[in-house]
This record gives sequence, C-alpha cells and structure tokens, in this order.
Amino acid sequence: MKKMYLHNQARNAALKTVFEGKSFNSGTGKDTVRIIPLGGSGNVTKNMYLYEYRYDGKIKDILIVDCGIGFPDEEMFGVDLVIPDIKYLMDKRDKIRGIVFTHGHDDHIGGLPYIYPRLGKVPMYAPTLAAAFANLKLKETSIHERVRPMRFDSRVEAGVFTVSFVRVTHSVPDTSHLIIDTPVGIFYHGSDFKFDPTPLDDKPSEIDKINAVGKKGVLCMLSDCLGSERPGFTPSEQIIGETIEKELRLSHGKVLFTTQSSNISRIQLAIELAQKHGRKIAFLGRSIDKNVEESVKLGYMRFPREVIINDRDLRRLPANKQFLVVAGAQGQPTSNLFRIANDAHKIVKLTDADTVILSADPIPGRENDVNKLIDQIYRHGARVSYSDIMEDLHVSGHGSSGDMMLLLSAVGPKYVMPIGGTYKHLMQYRRLAADLGYEKRSVLIPEDGEVLEFSKHAAPRVVDHITLDQIMIDGLGIGDVGNVVLKDRQTIAHEGIVVVVVPVNHSSGHMMSAPQIITRGFVYAREARNLLSHAGDVVERALTLRKGKIADWQMVKKRIAESLGEYLLKETGRSPLIVPVVLEV
Amino acid sequence: MKKMYLHNQARNAALKTVFEGKSFNSGTGKDTVRIIPLGGSGNVTKNMYLYEYRYDGKIKDILIVDCGIGFPDEEMFGVDLVIPDIKYLMDKRDKIRGIVFTHGHDDHIGGLPYIYPRLGKVPMYAPTLAAAFANLKLKETSIHERVRPMRFDSRVEAGVFTVSFVRVTHSVPDTSHLIIDTPVGIFYHGSDFKFDPTPLDDKPSEIDKINAVGKKGVLCMLSDCLGSERPGFTPSEQIIGETIEKELRLSHGKVLFTTQSSNISRIQLAIELAQKHGRKIAFLGRSIDKNVEESVKLGYMRFPREVIINDRDLRRLPANKQFLVVAGAQGQPTSNLFRIANDAHKIVKLTDADTVILSADPIPGRENDVNKLIDQIYRHGARVSYSDIMEDLHVSGHGSSGDMMLLLSAVGPKYVMPIGGTYKHLMQYRRLAADLGYEKRSVLIPEDGEVLEFSKHAAPRVVDHITLDQIMIDGLGIGDVGNVVLKDRQTIAHEGIVVVVVPVNHSSGHMMSAPQIITRGFVYAREARNLLSHAGDVVERALTLRKGKIADWQMVKKRIAESLGEYLLKETGRSPLIVPVVLEV
Repeated sequence: MKKMYLHNQARNAALKTVFEGKSFNSGTGKDTVRIIPLGGSGNVTKNMYLYEYRYDGKIKDILIVDCGIGFPDEEMFGVDLVIPDIKYLMDKRDKIRGIVFTHGHDDHIGGLPYIYPRLGKVPMYAPTLAAAFANLKLKETSIHERVRPMRFDSRVEAGVFTVSFVRVTHSVPDTSHLIIDTPVGIFYHGSDFKFDPTPLDDKPSEIDKINAVGKKGVLCMLSDCLGSERPGFTPSEQIIGETIEKELRLSHGKVLFTTQSSNISRIQLAIELAQKHGRKIAFLGRSIDKNVEESVKLGYMRFPREVIINDRDLRRLPANKQFLVVAGAQGQPTSNLFRIANDAHKIVKLTDADTVILSADPIPGRENDVNKLIDQIYRHGARVSYSDIMEDLHVSGHGSSGDMMLLLSAVGPKYVMPIGGTYKHLMQYRRLAADLGYEKRSVLIPEDGEVLEFSKHAAPRVVDHITLDQIMIDGLGIGDVGNVVLKDRQTIAHEGIVVVVVPVNHSSGHMMSAPQIITRGFVYAREARNLLSHAGDVVERALTLRKGKIADWQMVKKRIAESLGEYLLKETGRSPLIVPVVLEV
Repeated sequence: MKKMYLHNQARNAALKTVFEGKSFNSGTGKDTVRIIPLGGSGNVTKNMYLYEYRYDGKIKDILIVDCGIGFPDEEMFGVDLVIPDIKYLMDKRDKIRGIVFTHGHDDHIGGLPYIYPRLGKVPMYAPTLAAAFANLKLKETSIHERVRPMRFDSRVEAGVFTVSFVRVTHSVPDTSHLIIDTPVGIFYHGSDFKFDPTPLDDKPSEIDKINAVGKKGVLCMLSDCLGSERPGFTPSEQIIGETIEKELRLSHGKVLFTTQSSNISRIQLAIELAQKHGRKIAFLGRSIDKNVEESVKLGYMRFPREVIINDRDLRRLPANKQFLVVAGAQGQPTSNLFRIANDAHKIVKLTDADTVILSADPIPGRENDVNKLIDQIYRHGARVSYSDIMEDLHVSGHGSSGDMMLLLSAVGPKYVMPIGGTYKHLMQYRRLAADLGYEKRSVLIPEDGEVLEFSKHAAPRVVDHITLDQIMIDGLGIGDVGNVVLKDRQTIAHEGIVVVVVPVNHSSGHMMSAPQIITRGFVYAREARNLLSHAGDVVERALTLRKGKIADWQMVKKRIAESLGEYLLKETGRSPLIVPVVLEV
C-alpha cells in the first residue's frame, strides 16, 4: 500500500503539470462536458450515463453510455422492472450522436427495447458479444435497427466525442471500459470489471491500454465500486473448475448446474468438465438456449455437437450420464430450476442421487428466494452445492478493493467518481481512494440528480439538478404504474381496502338505501360481521349530519373516510385504504 | 476429525449396551414420549416444543419448552408477527404440567402474552434473566401469573418429567439447555448456543454437566443447527471489544452504538470502554431502557450511575464526550436509530464528525432495510462501522459446525434432531453428524407437522401428522388475518383491485343504471379513461346476456369477473382482484 501511495503521489505531481500546462491542444474556455447519470446515482443496476458536450453553454453533442434495466425494490409491489428516466433527453433528441454499450448484461443493455423507440434512430455500438446479446433483444421487438459490433481496436466517432474500447475481465466475455476523448479532457468510463489474470476465455484485461491512457492524463474516471467492501483481489474464474469437478466425481445421479445465463465462459467450462466425466449435456431454459446458440455462432463457445442432448431424449439416458445446464440461479418462479425443485417440470424429476450446483450468489434482495429454492431441492434428498457451504463455487464478476485501487493508480485520473454501487459502496470507495492519496474533493459523489460540469481550467461543479422518476414496467404498461398506484398498492398490501358505496338518486340527490361496505385484505368478512355492521352505522352517522339532499359530495366523502378510518383504527389497529363511492342510480 | 469419529464410535458401542440392556429401571413398553414442534420444523424462530408423555396410548403429561414469536415472511403483507399454532393443545389443557423457557430472546419468550391466556394457569419456569425479560412482557398485559426464576442447579418437576438446567453461552446471559428425564429415556433440549470459552459475563458453558449426561446415556438430543454452514468455531464475544475501542480512539464526534437490545453483556462492554475514553452514556430506545434497568436491578449489569446521562441533557455535553446506546440495529422504521438517520429525532442530529457502530448482523430478510439505514447514515458524512467492512464487529450467538460437533460428541445421543434452522441448515447438520459416525436414520428430520414417538425398545417413528397454521398478528387482532385475507392482499399488492358495482332495484331485481368501476393500485384512473370505459362495456355485455330481471346473481358475478378479467389481462398484462358487487337500492 505504501508503495502504491508513493507511486501515486509521483503520478499526481506529473498530472498536475499535464493539467495545468498546455497539453491539450483542442478546447477553449467555452467548452464544457456534463456527466448526467439517468439511472440515478447510488444505484447498482439501471445503468445509463450521458456525456453532454456544450460550447458556450449550448448543447452540441450527447453521447449515451449503456441503457439497462433495474430491479424493483420490495415495496414496488407488482412491478416487473424499472428503467432509466429519459425525460431529460426528450427535447434534445437531435443532439444524440450515439449509444455505446460496455457489455452484455441486462442492467446495461436491457432497457433498449423500451427506450430506443423514444430516442429516434441513434447509431448503437458495442463489443461483439454485447452487440449480439443486445440484438437478440431487439429482434423480439418491431425495432429494425441493430447494434453494430465493434472490435476492441476500433473507435467510435460520435460528434465531438471519440470513444475507444479497453477490454476488461468480468463475468461475461467482451466486457469493455471506454476511453472518451473530449475537448475538455479524457474521461475513462470504468464500469463493471475485475482483474482476472487467467480468465476462462484467455483474454485478459488490456492493462497496456490502461497504462497508456494514464500516462496521457485522464481528467475524470468513473469506476465500478460494488466490491469496495471486500479486501484484497477477487479470485479468478479458474478456481470454479476444481469445485465443479469435485461434485462430478462424487455424484452418482444427475448433475444440475446453474449460473447467470450470460456467463457463457463458465457454462463452457462446466460443459468441458461434464464431457470429460462421460456425461451428455442438455440446456434447460430459454435464456440459456439463446445465449449459447448465439455464442456458438460467433465462436465464443465451442463443443462437439454430439455431447449435447435434446431434453426430450433425457429419459433414455441413465441419470449418471446427464449434465443439465439449467436456468434459474436466482430462484425465479418461472424458471426451469424452480419448476424442477417444485415437482412441476414435465421432464426432469429430482431424486436423492442427484446433485445441484448453484454457481451464482443471490443478487441483493433475492436472498430469501434463493434460500427457499435450496430448501426445496433438499427436500428431494438431493445434494446441493452453494457458495455458503462450498468455497470457490461462485466468484464475483466485480473487483474487490485491490482491483479498484489497482485501476485507480494505473489510470491516475485528476478526479474519480465511483459508480454502480449503493451509497455505502461509494463511501467505502472514497476511503480506498484516500489511501491512495486522493483528497475528499477529488472523489466526486454527486447526490441523486445532481449534474456535474467539467471544464478545462476550473474544478468540476454542480450546475444542474434533474428529477429522476422511477419508470416502472408492470405487465404490458411502461410507466403507467406511477406513484399514486404504487402508494395504493402499498397501503392495501399492509392494511387492506374498504370500499363504501353510497347509492343516491341521480335527480334528487337523496340517499336511496343503506351504504354497503366491501372489504378485501382487511379482516375476514365472515368472521367480522359485528365490526362491519358497526362500521355501517359509523358511515350512516357521517352522512346524516346533513339531512335530505346531499350537495357537497367531496366533503361527505372526506367525512366518511375520516370517521370510518378513526373507528377501524380504534377497533383493529389497522388503517386500511378507504374508498367512498357515491353511486348515482 | 478422525479422532472425534473414533471416540464417537466407541461411545455408540457403549450406548448400544446402555439402550439395549436394562439400564432404565423405570418405564415399561407402554410408556411413550412424543416430540411435537408447534412452531413448525425447518423454522428459525417461533420456537415452541411439546414433550408429551403417554401411558398405554393415553396422554398423561405435557411439558412445553419455549413460546416464541416468529417474523412474517415478505409475502405476509401487513402482518406484524406470527405465533405458534396451539390448536393441538386446546382439548389437552388439563394435561399441561409446565412451561420451561431456555432463554430470554423474543423468538423463545415473545409469544407468551398472546398464548398464555389460552392455556390456563400453567406454572412457568426460566433461568433468572430469561424469567425477568418474560415478566417484563407479562407486566404489560392483564395476566397476573409470573415466570418463576430458577437457578442453574435447580430442577423442575412437571408431571412425569424432571427438567434440569445446563448453562450455555449465547448472545444473552442465562441461556440454558434442558435435560429432560422421562420414563422412556433422557432428552437433551439443546436450543440456541455457542461454546464461548471467554464469555463477557465470565460464566462459561457447564461442560461438566454435558459430559455427565452424555455418560448416563441420552436417547435423543435436539440441537441448534443455524450455524451449521460455517466452518470451525464461532469466536468469543471478547474480540468485539478491540473493534469498539479502535472506533473510540478514531472518533472526534459522537459515537452511536447499536446491537440487539437483549445483548446486555455487549452493552455492558461498550459502556465500560466508553467510560474509559471519558465519555458519558445515554440510552435511546424503550427496549434498551427496560432491559438495562432490569439487568442492573438483578445485578447482571454494573456501572457507576454518574456515567449515565439523560437524553435531554445531551445538548449540554460536547459531542466527543457522548456515547449513545441506540435501539434499531435491524433498521426498524420506528426505532431511534432509524429516526436519527432520517433527521427525525428530536434530540440527536448526525454530523460528519460522528461514528455509528452497528454491532449486529441483519437477521435473514432484513438485509435491505439495514443496507438502506447504512446509506442513510453515510449521507450525513458520518463514519459507519458494520461487519461487512469491519471484521470482529459482530460475532454470532449461534455456534458454527465445530461447536455443534463438539456438543454432539460430548452428549453422544442415540438420536439427534437438528432444530432452529431452515431445511438447508438441517441437511447440513446431517452432513456434520455423518462425519461423526451418525447414520442417516439416527439423524431425525421430521417433515412439517410430523410427530415422532419415542419408546423404550423401538426406534422412533412418525405416529401422527398435525396441521399447523400461520397464526398472524396484525394490529390488535390475533389470527383474524387468515389465509383468505392474506391471499387478497397479495393479489392486490401485485396487480391491484377492481370493484364493479351494479345497482339493482331491490324489489324488481332490475339493473337501475350503468355499473360503476372503481380501481385502486391497478392503473392510474385519470390516465386510463379509455380502458375503464371499455371495461364498463365489457361488464354491461356480461350482464345483458340475460335481459330484464336477473335471478342468479352468483352466476352473474362469476361471469363479470371472468369476462372483465380476460379483457384486462389482454389489455394490460395484469390480473387484478375483481370484486363484483350487487347493490340493492
């Protein structure tokens, strides 16, 4: 650490000269670049960043990096996905010069089908495999445009921006960092990565490019910080092989293997080991099928066709010759593994001779589902291997503090902005950067919606604050479940709903019969007759304050909700959502 | 391991003689003892076990061990607590001879206020501190009976059962295992424990008693298995002191400390260290207040009165002299720590000079809340110490695999039944037991509701299957939120609710005006007018199939729900709860 620190001090001194001298030959005092995170900062998923170039205050060019989906938090009832909020872009669409993707994970490419139609025909670029995965998604829509696959030695010209690619290791092949050259300085977009010296696809990170851009002088680096709480370095994917092999040696029944369906290198490794142990391989799950097919087509996976067996032919193969690559590592209820564990799969049945290898850690928020899945598999007597009891069964795709500090000292930017973590990860990254000699003001942690502007001769500053909404996708609707709907769902989920229908004569305005009370999710109506009958009295009392014709229904509704709410809280300790309805008949 | 294994084989051989010979001088072939877990097996919390003695098939005596609360899972919307289902006991109340508590944690004593009134006046016993904590709860109710505090060298006679206590270490003082002597054999009730050789209260586990009962011969041991996935031994509480002291040395503002409010030894340790560093201590939180007061009264905590400061006097004390013991380690929204983190505490405000020490790991299911709490504290610029980044800040109260294997080989029971874990922990315990030479059939893992019967000369067998419901507590109601209510809450939470009101004339049965559709949590009604107006048409079509007077309203309601459900699914991809209401006016 000491050495790194000194090394970095020396670099900082050098950089000082670079930045305060005349090393940039383009750009004047009128050039600025803003970084605008549309996914919200302090967010692990839903990645989408804008680089906005202005001259003399006027927007000239916008470059978009990534367009991912996010996962709803536990209070977003019924919401399937969340996507970045692009309303900021709506009146600036003619300035968008391109979208560049860093890699093929859903939290970086998955928002494309929802968002692209609203952007106009913007050119899209990505490293080969990421482009292929993104295009698989576009093919399922009516969008005709495709993401252009890029080699790592190529460049993208997007208005004033020149983007070049830096291959880094992660949990999916062809992951890239981006070097973004601008009139104001060089930005290094360091999203998800780790330094794996022995990656399964034999393509290590391009350290030479990282060192070279560091020497040139980087104004600001954005860096993955998700693993900043872990000490040391994240291990190589290689160690997983030994664990899989051990399970293969022990098992005398079927072996089921699950991991993220985009982690094709790990799937390739598992296939090779299964083959070595005389097993045939079947793929169970649409996402795995599609990803494997595409990866084989592009040469990212290789295996003899005869080791693959169709799932329908499994019945004719002895159990100890079967190796099943199954989707559902996160315990998703619609996945093959979930159905197998719950006796609902039409082909695969678990027995106590079988082994299930879970080679993925639960993503934050899904721990309970994964634990339930493990319990369910165990109930069949099958052996389960998962990372809580087996070391080396899953290694993270994200670097640990060592990886981060290595990148930071190699790039040695003037400013660094941690991304891709929650607030505690950002703060922990700041501690790491401090160990490398970075002062607090050099570690940029903008609050939600704050926009930072960089210029050539001044320190970056907050120049704008944009409001980002949660754009929720539920069923077929994009954004039609808004905060009002969600708030109602939350209240009803916790306390239930009480609907009070008051029938009135449409011409006279007189109440025509006793109000009717309907409840759901509140109390079991058959057992709570007394309560509900008293509630009816409470409503009638609220109504009879004004006799005869009722003029101001808004006021009456309010009074019903208040007096009924008060009564029910006293009797049950609950505050259900009360919906008074005036029905004109 | 090898040695343990051999040692155990020798013991098993010896036990074989004990059990197959004539070593028991009481009991005949007509005596049986059943173990009935009312909290459900495969459950971490909600502990409640029955030991039921029968002679010639007739129930003679029932002993209850523990009576705890459980926590709702994430799909139990709005439910505050769950408690054990005691309906099995309802026609056997005259056979209950006593309740013995193992220790003072809520998942072992917290169900008492809800359940005791339904049991009759059963005598209750617990180790001193556990009795005190249980009685604090009873004092808040109209129950007059109290739990009798017991010394560790005392015995409880409860019908045919003789219960003696074995002190073990855990995360609350006065935790006990129970030796339950019966005509059929000795049962060892080994709930929550770890082997801490240097506990903070200087009262280590009574290993001698454990060895002695092992030599006598134990028929069946129940054992805590929650930590069975962790290798080695759980560290001693002592190591936490060093970490707290380090934070005290670094901090130049307030120090806030939080842990489980029952962990009074850890609170005592923190107080001593804070005092050493010249700070005064304030307690913030009702549960901590009460527990500390009771523990001081009983001599379980000791500190000079003058180091304690009232929270109202904090304003007059410099920040770097303050040490605040705060409730809310699990991020509970009503807790002091939550309010402090969210700027809603009337006295304590966080600054960037402050340090917050979270000395507790999130309990399963609360990870998200704790992470949000950490983020929120960080936003004030305060330093946060939590176990993901600081080793030795929390050590579990539960043993790891080493602790469990040590207990198992010391007690050397004929049968062992892991308890207090989910299914994966039970299965992992079985692996550990296998390493000690226990065959599969000696490790008892009854399925949910299965009742095992032990007798003198035969292997234990499943003799009954009882159905256990989730008894949910929501607000003031016990059990009135049942499965129907919960199912409705779940559907509405995920998909919303649509109420269709059809007004009909009460005498003629004719529909009096167009049906009205009310939705909540489904779509934002103002923006979905078209959808709802078409939905009205769909309902009217469903109604007009039979013209004029409508006789069979059940059928009509069904038809409305079906056709409207179909229409809304097609249009929105959602399946809201549809409630057709016929309103007679």
